[in-house]
Amino acid sequence: MKVLVLGADGYLGWPTTMYFSGKGHDVVAVDNYFRRTEAHALECEALVPNPDLEERAALWEKVSGNTIQVYIGDITDYGFLRNIFETVQPDAVIHYAEQPSAPYSMMDRDRAAFTVHNNLIGTLNIVYAVKEVSPECHIIKLGTMGEYGTPDIDIEEGWIDIEHKGRKDTFLFPRQASSLYHTTKIQDTDLLWFYIRTWGLRVTDLMQGPVYGLSTEEADRDLRLMPHFSYDEIFGTVLNRFVVQAVAEYPLTVYGKGNQTRGYLNLKDTMQCVYLSATQPANRGELRIFNQVTETFSVNELAQKVKKVGNGLGYDVQLNNIDNPRIEKEDHYYNPVYTGLLELGLEPHYLTDDVIGSMFSIVDTYKDNIKRDAIFKGVSWK
Amino acid sequence: MKVLVLGADGYLGWPTTMYFSGKGHDVVAVDNYFRRTEAHALECEALVPNPDLEERAALWEKVSGNTIQVYIGDITDYGFLRNIFETVQPDAVIHYAEQPSAPYSMMDRDRAAFTVHNNLIGTLNIVYAVKEVSPECHIIKLGTMGEYGTPDIDIEEGWIDIEHKGRKDTFLFPRQASSLYHTTKIQDTDLLWFYIRTWGLRVTDLMQGPVYGLSTEEADRDLRLMPHFSYDEIFGTVLNRFVVQAVAEYPLTVYGKGNQTRGYLNLKDTMQCVYLSATQPANRGELRIFNQVTETFSVNELAQKVKKVGNGLGYDVQLNNIDNPRIEKEDHYYNPVYTGLLELGLEPHYLTDDVIGSMFSIVDTYKDNIKRDAIFKGVSWK
Repeated sequence: MKVLVLGADGYLGWPTTMYFSGKGHDVVAVDNYFRRTEAHALECEALVPNPDLEERAALWEKVSGNTIQVYIGDITDYGFLRNIFETVQPDAVIHYAEQPSAPYSMMDRDRAAFTVHNNLIGTLNIVYAVKEVSPECHIIKLGTMGEYGTPDIDIEEGWIDIEHKGRKDTFLFPRQASSLYHTTKIQDTDLLWFYIRTWGLRVTDLMQGPVYGLSTEEADRDLRLMPHFSYDEIFGTVLNRFVVQAVAEYPLTVYGKGNQTRGYLNLKDTMQCVYLSATQPANRGELRIFNQVTETFSVNELAQKVKKVGNGLGYDVQLNNIDNPRIEKEDHYYNPVYTGLLELGLEPHYLTDDVIGSMFSIVDTYKDNIKRDAIFKGVSWK
Repeated sequence: MKVLVLGADGYLGWPTTMYFSGKGHDVVAVDNYFRRTEAHALECEALVPNPDLEERAALWEKVSGNTIQVYIGDITDYGFLRNIFETVQPDAVIHYAEQPSAPYSMMDRDRAAFTVHNNLIGTLNIVYAVKEVSPECHIIKLGTMGEYGTPDIDIEEGWIDIEHKGRKDTFLFPRQASSLYHTTKIQDTDLLWFYIRTWGLRVTDLMQGPVYGLSTEEADRDLRLMPHFSYDEIFGTVLNRFVVQAVAEYPLTVYGKGNQTRGYLNLKDTMQCVYLSATQPANRGELRIFNQVTETFSVNELAQKVKKVGNGLGYDVQLNNIDNPRIEKEDHYYNPVYTGLLELGLEPHYLTDDVIGSMFSIVDTYKDNIKRDAIFKGVSWK
């Protein structure tokens, strides 16, 4: 299979690139280094400096014998993306190339406008490149569970049957998110769903919860192949942040009451989910949606787990329930369905104390890199 | 009331500007002349050449004694828009400044990308200008009934209660449109609804059906004050096009079976609806949605009405059921609710033979301007 990974330098992009390459597929990696550049500008670089994409591809070739072709450029430039499609003729495109941070999207007008433009024009360009160059190509788009928000009804996998005044129809499950970033993911679904119906594209939308972890089978072969691991408020996900905070003995920043509940998954399971989706593609004209999580936790539960493991390892882990900088419900119903990927073959890695302990171990190796100032800056939704 | 009309040069923008000015409000008119420029480039100019916005404002001042301030520029330029907000401190902003044509949005990648960028960054800039400069300002945004598509259930006014597995919640009514343009109107609703919840904006979303007519009380005072009246496939709405086709004795272009049913309204009723919304604003934190139509017709019914009136006036009116260049259902259920604006005080002008007859009369005056080539170019959805 020829696979195009867009956003290949990122937390998920690089491990995905290696995962497919390791299984013998022809992988082409594309990135514009947005995350690196902005993390540097905002002084919240990854815990471990990552070699650039070309260096990582060369390293990977040494350890695996497999070649990864790299293109550095911006997919909002249609000519750039279209040329890659013409050269590669991909069977699948994995679209991670969106601005992925909720706080970043809330910082100011310019970053909000960047998020809207980048995420929607990037997605539109993929649609056009597929239509004009590779109409059979399967688009795997990373969505987010955050699109659904926290409704008072069970969250189905993307679709819902509605009975109203004695008549029935099936619709996209209602979406209302609590950041601009998450809202652009609703909007890219609107966009894809329109073109799927109009041009018969095949699309899988992976509604992913926050991911944790920094270990994959491929990354573990050489520390320089580690994913881009952010621990700051802007680009870091919650469990990863908490482990770094615990190692730094910086009280865990629990927002508000901490009863906010979400679905989570291990980085290794993201790899599986994307791979299972690629090898069992959606049909032409289908928008196939999976809720990509393996278990749900409240923020308090995560903090308690990290505290327990950290204390056991001898760290002084404190919790700090700070004023919530976000606007979100702190007490709410949350019951998502997530059986579709299990049916495709997903074998989950659950969040055990051992998993958290091994995260502590890697983070501790790099604890001198931790910048305490990067951990919490208080980007406010107001 | 200080009112900012964005997109003031357009079919609805200019009559709205005069309508509010005529009632003694302070109106500021903003446009970037996109429609004029593109209509010229695509050789589908309006039936009657309109003086530019500054000339029209001067003409209007002569006939009414009221001044309209004009700004020419692009609201996707945040500095430009923010400066206007700082100068004007508007009580209401009427947002017509989106790329309004479905066929235009389907022509090619560049026009698609322009539509996405223009419509979403424009709306985002309004949100930021209101938040940063005039937080009490009421945003009146033109939506479209096309956002709902043609679901198999009754279409409510923007919201729906869903009962699911024994629990209940209220959501935006499901939206799935049949052009990229209409999809961007779903996306701008996603955007507004997020910021309404987050920043307490006050917004009225007018889900309008296709508008017909070229007469308003103010426009009738001087023919040079006539709205921008398009009759072509790109920018013209269906009934307006049919009347021009009938006058030109160009067979009416009914797409496919012609059973496509939509809600319609008279231009005079658009004026009323927007005015009623502005004088009875939404609350802070409210997304108030109205379905802005007064009656529903199939395309065949409209064509038959035009044929009947045209024949009575001595025109040889033929119908031509051509292959549908769009992708849309030609047989479908359609039952929208539209009582909210009646409750606010709307007094509808229904589509009588007299109304159609008076459209014939004005169009006939300008029949030498009709370019037959502009009527149908066959912009295909495929």
